[in-house]
Amino acid sequence: MSSTRDIETLIELMARLPGLGPRSARRAVLQLVRKRDLLLTPLARQMQKVAETARECTICGNVGTTEICHICADQRRATGLICVVEDVADLWAMERAGVFKGRYHVLGGTLSALDQVGPEQLRIPDLIARVAEEGATEVILALKATIDGQITAHYIADQLEGRVRLTSLAQGVPVGGELDYLDDGTISAALNARKEI
Amino acid sequence: MSSTRDIETLIELMARLPGLGPRSARRAVLQLVRKRDLLLTPLARQMQKVAETARECTICGNVGTTEICHICADQRRATGLICVVEDVADLWAMERAGVFKGRYHVLGGTLSALDQVGPEQLRIPDLIARVAEEGATEVILALKATIDGQITAHYIADQLEGRVRLTSLAQGVPVGGELDYLDDGTISAALNARKEI
Repeated sequence: MSSTRDIETLIELMARLPGLGPRSARRAVLQLVRKRDLLLTPLARQMQKVAETARECTICGNVGTTEICHICADQRRATGLICVVEDVADLWAMERAGVFKGRYHVLGGTLSALDQVGPEQLRIPDLIARVAEEGATEVILALKATIDGQITAHYIADQLEGRVRLTSLAQGVPVGGELDYLDDGTISAALNARKEI
Repeated sequence: MSSTRDIETLIELMARLPGLGPRSARRAVLQLVRKRDLLLTPLARQMQKVAETARECTICGNVGTTEICHICADQRRATGLICVVEDVADLWAMERAGVFKGRYHVLGGTLSALDQVGPEQLRIPDLIARVAEEGATEVILALKATIDGQITAHYIADQLEGRVRLTSLAQGVPVGGELDYLDDGTISAALNARKEI
């Protein structure tokens, strides 16, 4: 044992976070102990607070501290325009861009035959019901460009076909991206979707 | 704001940990919220516990939950053999190797003219007093092979010269290390310290 039990336990728990392994968890814990008043105590308190209050929005699946998240509750945002994303991280990424002014729908994953994830395990039935209830005019499928993501997008498109306008995010060269570092698929997608200047 | 205030605050606090930036802190927090009962709540509780109990060993400077750490309190470990390390992470690394059976002394940093760190800011006076009090026979200087580390080692060696046997860790090729990936300094140190087979 390289330190007392309590500290070892804390290291083991920290090592379970994504992006941290045993070594970086040890470094993080030493830093925490060193900055007890500045970091460890506030972090413990904040985690406790979030553990008690965090919940999923009953409409879109976003993580927040209220039954209906601040996006769904925002009257200024367009209703009838729903952006479908895989998980909350994608929703947050869209929000950081700050251009989308509609509502979201978080699926909570993608369909996967391998992992036995069917539509019922995701929030797909909720989405279909929601499109009808809210009288949505457009559904933007902002799913990841992975095979599972695209299968999920096709499945949803099949289900909603004819009921609502269906769109997906444009594929192409990232803004500021260099061709030299891009994969072949992206370059060919960008070329196929080329536009008049 | 991409989520409610409490969650944002937690992300900001997590992003201050070494090895985590804003993006990985967000990922970690989403994981925490998803695994609330398995991870978030136990982690919050453990952090609170460590925040209340963690302290520096009054003898060696190791981090633990008792006034005297389990190493200093261990009667089976050799007295009079003191391994001097820069910080607690180094002490833990030595302990993981599991071969050293003496005691430690954590300096808490290295001398640095640039950062205005003098011997008084480190636990160097404590070390010198301890060597005399405990009648130490050997002091192993296991400081990092950086310039500041080596300056600190020289300073301590100067202070203790003639009073105790002074040694340092051997330098050479790491066990399992490939020459191709080693820096020139290590190769030349290993060559200079070559041994008869």
